[in-house]
Amino acid sequence: MRRFKKAAIIGTGLIGGSFGLFLKRNKLAQEVVGVAQHQASLDQALKMKAIDHASLGLDIISGADLLVLATPVDTIIRSYKQILKIAGEDCLVTDVGSTKAKIVSCLERVFPNYIGSHPLAGSEKRGISHACPGIFKNSVCILTPTSKTRKLALAKIKALWQRAGARVVLLSPPEHDRILSLTSHLPHSLAFALMNSVPAHFLKFSSGGLKDTTRIAASSPSLWQGIFLTNRMNMLKAISLFENNLRQLKSAIKKGDKKLLTHILSQAQKRRSLLE
Amino acid sequence: MRRFKKAAIIGTGLIGGSFGLFLKRNKLAQEVVGVAQHQASLDQALKMKAIDHASLGLDIISGADLLVLATPVDTIIRSYKQILKIAGEDCLVTDVGSTKAKIVSCLERVFPNYIGSHPLAGSEKRGISHACPGIFKNSVCILTPTSKTRKLALAKIKALWQRAGARVVLLSPPEHDRILSLTSHLPHSLAFALMNSVPAHFLKFSSGGLKDTTRIAASSPSLWQGIFLTNRMNMLKAISLFENNLRQLKSAIKKGDKKLLTHILSQAQKRRSLLE
Repeated sequence: MRRFKKAAIIGTGLIGGSFGLFLKRNKLAQEVVGVAQHQASLDQALKMKAIDHASLGLDIISGADLLVLATPVDTIIRSYKQILKIAGEDCLVTDVGSTKAKIVSCLERVFPNYIGSHPLAGSEKRGISHACPGIFKNSVCILTPTSKTRKLALAKIKALWQRAGARVVLLSPPEHDRILSLTSHLPHSLAFALMNSVPAHFLKFSSGGLKDTTRIAASSPSLWQGIFLTNRMNMLKAISLFENNLRQLKSAIKKGDKKLLTHILSQAQKRRSLLE
Repeated sequence: MRRFKKAAIIGTGLIGGSFGLFLKRNKLAQEVVGVAQHQASLDQALKMKAIDHASLGLDIISGADLLVLATPVDTIIRSYKQILKIAGEDCLVTDVGSTKAKIVSCLERVFPNYIGSHPLAGSEKRGISHACPGIFKNSVCILTPTSKTRKLALAKIKALWQRAGARVVLLSPPEHDRILSLTSHLPHSLAFALMNSVPAHFLKFSSGGLKDTTRIAASSPSLWQGIFLTNRMNMLKAISLFENNLRQLKSAIKKGDKKLLTHILSQAQKRRSLLE
């Protein structure tokens, strides 16, 4: 793998910081620079040697031949034109956003060497302090090429993720957004709504079930509103599908229909057994 | 603590088996006998020394001065009269069922020394093979006395759970069922409905979020249909409350209302921070 001259990571949080650590530990770039909103995050990234140089402003990314956009999805959409002005259109670009259709349609119009990435390696934890180069190991990383995607850009980004230990899968941006609305965004929306349904003074009576079910409700609200809103139509469909399933379960309870209820729960239990 | 002469555990699964191990390790009974539906479960309980003697039939419980009912809730309701015939009404009795109002109203009518227990120490795992005497340590155990409960029975069962390492909390049976419908039964119903909403061929694109959120969907369907149906009215209310919260979240997504959506998610995140 050819070494990059200058890799720039915009958003040195959990994923961006981990990617910086991966690049640095494997000496995949002569220089890694990082941009973030908060100086404390940059200081920590420098201390952890996830980046070599840091800045609160975008000017530092000038001259980069690899650009990784690791800010929340709506920040990417808001800032890519400014990034383009400084980075130029020639560098290899990817992002790690959790929704793809909107981002890809914006970025591929201006960066000819762009390919969207979504490493399924996030968690409810956030920030550089949780970063670690190993988080991509044995994870799935979805790349979302389109008819406009250059083969070389795809090959290079694919090789990077594979080197980081991820199993790369290709999906079109709309396919990605439809699938992830069910496997990731829906569970998050339910965890948030569940947490809002349990009165605070009842929480002392919760066991492992509630804790596990709502772990992801500890996720960042600003990050997740962006994910929900940039995947709006799929989210609405996913929630409606869930509402139908919950209605069936509720109806079986209401009717006291033991047979139907056992059937519904067994179906769910059987599918859950496929998950691990 | 006075040693029991003969402790009988009906249902030597995860909780019953763990309780047997706790009694045996602490020499709290001269003899511990176990009843289960399957010989394999009893063989394993004997092998693990969770019980001294085992039987598929109830006759073995005759003469017990401590009786722990650890079968699924609907099995307890179906079998207590038969148990009464063999055990007699004088022994100290508790159960470990996840719903209390129905069970307590049945059992306290026939066993004067009965008090309901609900150790919040279960998991999606089931069976004696996962039993361990330490599962009650630092857990909450809810006892559900009523106006009929004898003080001595309450004191003795309370002392047992405390000895097992649990923090004992007293709630009335209806209070218990209302609170647990939100902190435990609702999360289970959502996990089952969520699992039924994600097509099997999408599961390879799931990350930690879906796995955590649906861990409890691996729970036993026969156990959980009984819990849902013996806590029917509270379950219907809990699901309706959740449906309202989900509808609000969905509506904010539909309207693209970033401010409202962030508010809803922040409220949930804040409450989640109280949980651990």
